[in-house]
Amino acid sequence: MDVGIVGGSGYGGSELIRLLQAHPTFKLRTVAARASAGRDLAEVFPHLGLDGPLVPAEPDRLAGCDVVFLATPHEASLRLAPELLRAGAAVVDLSGAYRLPPAEFAAWYGVEHTSPGLAPAAYGLPELDRSRIAGARLVANPGCFPTAALLALAPLGDLAEPAGVVVTGLSGTSGAGKGLREDLHVSHAVQNVTPYGAPGHRHTPEIERGWGTCAGLGAPVPVSFTPHLAPMSRGLLATVTARLAGSPVRVRAAFGAAYDAEPFVRVLPEGVWPATTHVRGGNSAHVGVAVDERAGVVVAACAIDNLVKGAAGQAVQNANLVTGLPEAAGLSAAGVYP
Amino acid sequence: MDVGIVGGSGYGGSELIRLLQAHPTFKLRTVAARASAGRDLAEVFPHLGLDGPLVPAEPDRLAGCDVVFLATPHEASLRLAPELLRAGAAVVDLSGAYRLPPAEFAAWYGVEHTSPGLAPAAYGLPELDRSRIAGARLVANPGCFPTAALLALAPLGDLAEPAGVVVTGLSGTSGAGKGLREDLHVSHAVQNVTPYGAPGHRHTPEIERGWGTCAGLGAPVPVSFTPHLAPMSRGLLATVTARLAGSPVRVRAAFGAAYDAEPFVRVLPEGVWPATTHVRGGNSAHVGVAVDERAGVVVAACAIDNLVKGAAGQAVQNANLVTGLPEAAGLSAAGVYP
Amino acid sequence: MDVGIVGGSGYGGSELIRLLQAHPTFKLRTVAARASAGRDLAEVFPHLGLDGPLVPAEPDRLAGCDVVFLATPHEASLRLAPELLRAGAAVVDLSGAYRLPPAEFAAWYGVEHTSPGLAPAAYGLPELDRSRIAGARLVANPGCFPTAALLALAPLGDLAEPAGVVVTGLSGTSGAGKGLREDLHVSHAVQNVTPYGAPGHRHTPEIERGWGTCAGLGAPVPVSFTPHLAPMSRGLLATVTARLAGSPVRVRAAFGAAYDAEPFVRVLPEGVWPATTHVRGGNSAHVGVAVDERAGVVVAACAIDNLVKGAAGQAVQNANLVTGLPEAAGLSAAGVYP
Amino acid sequence: MDVGIVGGSGYGGSELIRLLQAHPTFKLRTVAARASAGRDLAEVFPHLGLDGPLVPAEPDRLAGCDVVFLATPHEASLRLAPELLRAGAAVVDLSGAYRLPPAEFAAWYGVEHTSPGLAPAAYGLPELDRSRIAGARLVANPGCFPTAALLALAPLGDLAEPAGVVVTGLSGTSGAGKGLREDLHVSHAVQNVTPYGAPGHRHTPEIERGWGTCAGLGAPVPVSFTPHLAPMSRGLLATVTARLAGSPVRVRAAFGAAYDAEPFVRVLPEGVWPATTHVRGGNSAHVGVAVDERAGVVVAACAIDNLVKGAAGQAVQNANLVTGLPEAAGLSAAGVYP
Repeated sequence: MDVGIVGGSGYGGSELIRLLQAHPTFKLRTVAARASAGRDLAEVFPHLGLDGPLVPAEPDRLAGCDVVFLATPHEASLRLAPELLRAGAAVVDLSGAYRLPPAEFAAWYGVEHTSPGLAPAAYGLPELDRSRIAGARLVANPGCFPTAALLALAPLGDLAEPAGVVVTGLSGTSGAGKGLREDLHVSHAVQNVTPYGAPGHRHTPEIERGWGTCAGLGAPVPVSFTPHLAPMSRGLLATVTARLAGSPVRVRAAFGAAYDAEPFVRVLPEGVWPATTHVRGGNSAHVGVAVDERAGVVVAACAIDNLVKGAAGQAVQNANLVTGLPEAAGLSAAGVYP
Repeated sequence: MDVGIVGGSGYGGSELIRLLQAHPTFKLRTVAARASAGRDLAEVFPHLGLDGPLVPAEPDRLAGCDVVFLATPHEASLRLAPELLRAGAAVVDLSGAYRLPPAEFAAWYGVEHTSPGLAPAAYGLPELDRSRIAGARLVANPGCFPTAALLALAPLGDLAEPAGVVVTGLSGTSGAGKGLREDLHVSHAVQNVTPYGAPGHRHTPEIERGWGTCAGLGAPVPVSFTPHLAPMSRGLLATVTARLAGSPVRVRAAFGAAYDAEPFVRVLPEGVWPATTHVRGGNSAHVGVAVDERAGVVVAACAIDNLVKGAAGQAVQNANLVTGLPEAAGLSAAGVYP
Repeated sequence: MDVGIVGGSGYGGSELIRLLQAHPTFKLRTVAARASAGRDLAEVFPHLGLDGPLVPAEPDRLAGCDVVFLATPHEASLRLAPELLRAGAAVVDLSGAYRLPPAEFAAWYGVEHTSPGLAPAAYGLPELDRSRIAGARLVANPGCFPTAALLALAPLGDLAEPAGVVVTGLSGTSGAGKGLREDLHVSHAVQNVTPYGAPGHRHTPEIERGWGTCAGLGAPVPVSFTPHLAPMSRGLLATVTARLAGSPVRVRAAFGAAYDAEPFVRVLPEGVWPATTHVRGGNSAHVGVAVDERAGVVVAACAIDNLVKGAAGQAVQNANLVTGLPEAAGLSAAGVYP
Repeated sequence: MDVGIVGGSGYGGSELIRLLQAHPTFKLRTVAARASAGRDLAEVFPHLGLDGPLVPAEPDRLAGCDVVFLATPHEASLRLAPELLRAGAAVVDLSGAYRLPPAEFAAWYGVEHTSPGLAPAAYGLPELDRSRIAGARLVANPGCFPTAALLALAPLGDLAEPAGVVVTGLSGTSGAGKGLREDLHVSHAVQNVTPYGAPGHRHTPEIERGWGTCAGLGAPVPVSFTPHLAPMSRGLLATVTARLAGSPVRVRAAFGAAYDAEPFVRVLPEGVWPATTHVRGGNSAHVGVAVDERAGVVVAACAIDNLVKGAAGQAVQNANLVTGLPEAAGLSAAGVYP
């Protein structure tokens, strides 16, 4: 099966290349980029061991691809996805372009949606609802923070009060992309922790929609979300705090019921918290949970690699579902530790 | 004025030495340690540029000191403080031994308090109540997390609901001390973020007592507190989320009123969050605050150096108050950036 | 083909597990350990996603394995290799036990060799001499520093003076193993560079033997070798400086001739130096070279992942050669960047 | 005594501000900058705790300063130093503008020297020759690598062969300045070691001139110099390897004789190597040395903070000498560890 990538010069794109090189069925046919079109991949990403130029990010360059991954900004995804769908490709979009209903998209992203009929597309978090993904031609790959936050929150649907959830996010710096910025200069960032983009981070409405669904309400539930930047290149941790509403003894069982059969989610033993270093480079999510009866809350934390389960790995997982392949195809490699 | 340190072989002790070497009035007369007694300071802490052996941690070794800093575990502080007070010294204790009422101490620390008449001592967070410190002979220097959390929370006393506060802590690894542990091995920890010690971290009751006071209640208020370890040697960030109860327009003014006259606290402009890298090595606290009206919360974050404002620097600040010196004496050095 | 690992609780062992899980032909049958025998792999190395106990490091536990990898200290390898060979297994030893002639081994390692007939075994640096490896039953997998140093030096055999070579090594901390030590405490090591183990590091004689061979002499040539520890978990760089003896214009061609057909070695373009971050997690070696005519030297640098090409990856490469498989089997995965 | 800084928006300039704030005699009167003129210091460098705008980098803004520190590129220093000298100020220039004779400067920096009568100025490495500095009006503050390399080399003047010296440099990233570059993006650099700028780094001729003087020759001696970037914000290590020419038993005594009376240089005990973490933030240089008789070399390593002893701290040390103050005035603060 032939696949293509648009956005091959960014971290999401290069991670897709890395994973697709090891995929048993998908054959990477085209890697396109916009500003870096024409540059040699060996120069842009020496770690991949691949030569050859990045091709321009035009739909006709991707003709014949069964699946196209869009590792592009939402503006480019708005433009490219409809054309690629018309050309017969299935599309997994890593941007925020198709995650929200059009009006909500416009409110959070500040631009009108140009394909309102396509949004929201199937939300590509398989552990929450893989059936809808399997039948989709367009999948909206979740944001990195929502992936971790919702994996931590989902089992709490009927054990926590819907309101008052606080989500703290901690991301490695690759989550901020490759662009040059003063706060991403290594001398500044190498030993620094700081909140950023709060309140109002664009991942917030995804978390609120997912949590609303998990909590059994028909609508998004407001949550407070504060992301932070941590001095590591990869890794993401979401720590969620929710008011306990059900019996504390049911909490652990709920996490087991949710994830024991999941190939990529591991619930850690009582008293053990997830460490981002244990999921670096792999598609795993490690989840820890504890009840704090004194404070009346349940705290759950989920660690993922922001570029794998938080982006490219989950995109491949979704593409596997869309194309009827085994969901874990090409994703079984363990992480790289230490 | 002669001062002494017990616990000179730990990070808190070595930081006290560093600061006291530059103090205009305090003269460092004795540095004592328990397990490392007899070892040469030049070998234990080559960065200090000091020679000479650490003396045993016995009270008679500190005779004649006007102030003694206890950078010791709480068990040692329980034993040493009464003897030192009897000998006429003022004592600033960096452990948790005298921060709580005896019953609360016993519940959180798992040992009976042996000097219940001394606990709680004056709580050494000058920005909250410096008058009580000025008149004390024994000061309980706050924990690193409570220092940052309470500086973020204090101005919200009548602007937030007392209940439902969520505190997320992020600490550099020196906060975990010098002991050798698998999770502090550099290969594991160098690119890792993980929650730890939650729920039930011993700094929780300090935050709850302080927040109860700030909120104008006569008693501690339960908060949820989840500390995390971040891959940096120094630096601590506390991010607090509280339900907004007052008018959002009053929030920024409240922070200004609380801190504009404070020598060590800086409230950052609207839209700017504190970065731990900007306070490394100095006694400053940087505070940022934002209202999230959509979610109905106020979020505040405070960055400090866990070993300075979170330990040794604040201890010197307290000793200055106790001895009637200018509060900032010996603490004006800027941080070391980048 | 069934394979086993002894030393599964160390970094070398866990890296072997990671790579062998993805190998198309080798089936990992047994993972043994000494001190950690009985512990569950899921607890020792959560990143691997494997359950089940580590078995004791006894030869009969490895009966039936076609290949056994010894990721053990040299003392254990001295004891285990002969027994495993007698039992019919091929052995790839990652320790220094079989890299040197017995007398040289005794001088550098401070213990007599107990199987002098087996030492030196085939030296497992395929890029230097893969024919000898292919026919061997026991392979001495090279040290991490010698691997990088010799890949940088080998093409200079007839272009540099044999004497006077200076090798500077820079290793990530995983090269120092998992043991707890003050200088590997994250708070000390996280922003630190320091020389260590010099002069007299045990990797020196390997470099000297290899360089002697490359230089066409029948004997080892003394080199000066100074390793340093750098604040990263993985990655190793060897920078070699040699007196130029041949024509500078021949240098670049010599590197091309040596490595253009090598699957794992990449010679970087003129003016580009290797970066350890580009080889993390993969079996690649990146090599850069420059002539400094003013100073009369040639400088070459080689970057590898100390745990992959410097240990477990090269061990799999050697096992592939020994068993007649394609040399790159199971080793094609790209590195993990950033 | 009034002093001024030009280049206050760079790392060298901000470090000068930090040190001068704590200086007992120098009063910081003016901080000037070029591109950042008009910006508020509190925004550019929040760690300093200072408010007020950076003034334009024009000589008349510095009128009345007894000493002016130029933390500027060499082009700006070429222009500014003569004017400031004419205006009566003593000048300590942190750039390379006045370190070399004019012809050598032109060859290495690619521009003609516009004040050949001023170059070379007094070379500001007090441990090598403080008498010349004391009488100077213009001091050429050494480069960071030459400072460490020459402190390691100087005692070897009559114990090592002049030819064949190899210098390996390892610098923290602040040595590369604040400019935004792909290789200084935190995601790339945070766990990366790489050589750079070799051969032909502009610090080479400084090392060669200094070594020529130490070796008792009347002229520079070619050395091979390869700098590397290490993943830390501050810290610099120079490791030098030289052919042993004298008796090995005299080596340690030579280092003692050279540095026992020096306030800022500490020779470490036999078997101990310097660690950059022990000199961070302070003006100290730690030096270790070992003889490798087998290889016929002596290896010495020197660790400094590239921004303090390697730049701003040494500049203050030089200004103290020029103005007749105690050489260590304002520089006694210990480093910040861990």
